[in-house]
Amino acid sequence: MSSFLDHLTETADRVTVALDALLERPDGPEQRVISAMRYAALGPGKRLRPFLLIEAGNLVGGDERALLRAACAVECVHAYSLIHDDLPCMDDDDLRRGRPTVHREYDEATAVLAGDALQSQAYELLADPETHEHAAVRAELVMRLARAAGPRGMVGGQMIDMAVEAGEETDIGIITRCQRMKTGALISFCAEAGGLIAHADRAHRLALEGFAHDLGLCYQIVDDLLDAEGDESLTGKRTGKDAGQGKANFVSILGVADARDRAARLADQAKAHLDPFGKDADMLRELMDYVLARQS
Amino acid sequence: MSSFLDHLTETADRVTVALDALLERPDGPEQRVISAMRYAALGPGKRLRPFLLIEAGNLVGGDERALLRAACAVECVHAYSLIHDDLPCMDDDDLRRGRPTVHREYDEATAVLAGDALQSQAYELLADPETHEHAAVRAELVMRLARAAGPRGMVGGQMIDMAVEAGEETDIGIITRCQRMKTGALISFCAEAGGLIAHADRAHRLALEGFAHDLGLCYQIVDDLLDAEGDESLTGKRTGKDAGQGKANFVSILGVADARDRAARLADQAKAHLDPFGKDADMLRELMDYVLARQS
Repeated sequence: MSSFLDHLTETADRVTVALDALLERPDGPEQRVISAMRYAALGPGKRLRPFLLIEAGNLVGGDERALLRAACAVECVHAYSLIHDDLPCMDDDDLRRGRPTVHREYDEATAVLAGDALQSQAYELLADPETHEHAAVRAELVMRLARAAGPRGMVGGQMIDMAVEAGEETDIGIITRCQRMKTGALISFCAEAGGLIAHADRAHRLALEGFAHDLGLCYQIVDDLLDAEGDESLTGKRTGKDAGQGKANFVSILGVADARDRAARLADQAKAHLDPFGKDADMLRELMDYVLARQS
Repeated sequence: MSSFLDHLTETADRVTVALDALLERPDGPEQRVISAMRYAALGPGKRLRPFLLIEAGNLVGGDERALLRAACAVECVHAYSLIHDDLPCMDDDDLRRGRPTVHREYDEATAVLAGDALQSQAYELLADPETHEHAAVRAELVMRLARAAGPRGMVGGQMIDMAVEAGEETDIGIITRCQRMKTGALISFCAEAGGLIAHADRAHRLALEGFAHDLGLCYQIVDDLLDAEGDESLTGKRTGKDAGQGKANFVSILGVADARDRAARLADQAKAHLDPFGKDADMLRELMDYVLARQS
C-alpha cells in the first residue's frame, strides 16, 4: 500500500508541475484572476482524477504526454467546480483543503471569473495540437469533457444538489442520479479519456468506464460518510454540513451501516470490471481500496 | 439600410431557432438550470456576433451549417458572460435587454450554474463532428474560442473592468487593453472562425481579423457613449452607470466629442480592411455603419 501512496503522491506532483507550466503567469492588469486560478489549481490536493486518467491510460498504452495534459485539463475543470461550489450563493464554504476558499482569499467576483477561466483553460489545453497528434482525438476529448461538465453532467448534478439542499422532496433514486452527474460524470470522463488517447479497443474501454462508474459512486458515498463522521482536521473542510442543514444524502437515507455496506459492494464491483487486465490493473485496484478507506 | 436590417433580423432568427434545437430541453430534476440557460440564450438580442461570424464566413465561402453552429457557440459564450457579469458580486444588474437578469428571474446559484453550463455547451457544440468535416478545424475553433474567453481574453478584460470600477488608477492604455480583451477578443474570434471554417487564405483571414479588431473597439466606444447619453427605454438596460459610479471609460477619459470622433475613425479604418473583397463585403460595411449608429 505504501508503494501505492508513493505513486499517488509522485503523480500528483507531476500534475502540479505540469499545471504550473501550462497556466498563465500572473502579470498585466488582469493578474488578479490569474493569481486566483493558480491558487485554486495548484493548491494541495490528492489529484485523484488525474491519477485515474493517467493510470487508466497507462493500462491501455496511452502516450504519457497526452495523458498528462488531459489530466491537467480535468484538474482545471475540477478546480473550477470547487471554486464555484464554494461561493456564498452555492455551498457557502470558507475552507477548502485546509485553506481559505477562493472568494475568501480574493473576493467573490474574482472567484467567479477564476472559475470561468479555468473552464476555458481546460478546453484550450485539450484542443491544442501538443495534446495529441490526431485532431479527431482532441476534438472527441473536448466534446466528452464538455458533456461531462454540462447540464447533464457536473453542473446538472450541482443543480439537483441545490434543490435537495433547499429541502425539495427526494429519494435514493434522485440522490444517486445527482451524484452520478455531480461527481460521477467527470470521473467517468477520466476513464474514457485514457481509452481514447490510447485508441483502446471497445472491450477495454467499456471495462475502464464500468470501473470508473462504480468508483465514482463509491467515492461519493464515502464523501457522505466522511461528512457524517469525519474529522475536520483530516478532511480539511467543514464536516457535519449535510446533517446540520437537514440535507438528504446517501447516509441520511441509507443510514451509516447500509451506506458503508453499499460502498464496499461498489468497490468489489468496480474491481471486477478490471479482471480482463489481470495483474496490470493492480494500481487501479489499489486506487479503489484507497478511495474506500480514505479519511479525507 | 432597410435590407441590411431585414438581413440582420433574419439571421438573428435563424440563430435563435438553431440554438433552440441545440440546447437541452428542460426535463429531469436538473431542469431549472436548463431553463435558465434557455432564458439567457434564447432571449431577445441582436445576435451581432453570430451575424459577424456568418457574414465573414460567407464572404470567404464557408459551409453554411458549420458557420451557423459556430455562431451558436459564440452566442452561448456571450450569453454566459452576460449572466455572470450581471451577478450581484460583479456589475449587479437587474435588467438586461429589457427583462430581469437571470439571477433576478431565477436565483444567484442557478445563474452561476447556467453561465457555467453555457460555456461547456459552446465547446461541446464546436467539437462535435456535425460542426465541420475536418477534426483539425473543430479543434482549432475550440482552442481559439477558449483563448478568446480566457484570462487573456474576455475574462481577463472583465477582471480589469472590475479593478477600474473599484477605482484603481487607469489611463487610456489600460481602458483600451481592457476593452480589447473584454469584448474585442470574442468579436475577433468571430472573424477568425469564419476564415477557418472556409479555409480562407492568409491575406483574406488577416483582412477579416483587422476588420473585426476595429469593429470591436468601435463597438465598445459606442457602448460607453450610450451609457453616457443613451435612452434607457431604447438600450433596455440601466444607463449612466459608469458616471454614477465614477468609473473611468472611453467617454470619461476622452470626452464625448473625442470619443465620437475616435469611433468614426475606427469605423473608416475597419471598412478599409475590407477593400480586397470589393462589393462582396457590403454587408460587413453596413454592419460597421450599424454598430456606429446604434441606439441600443
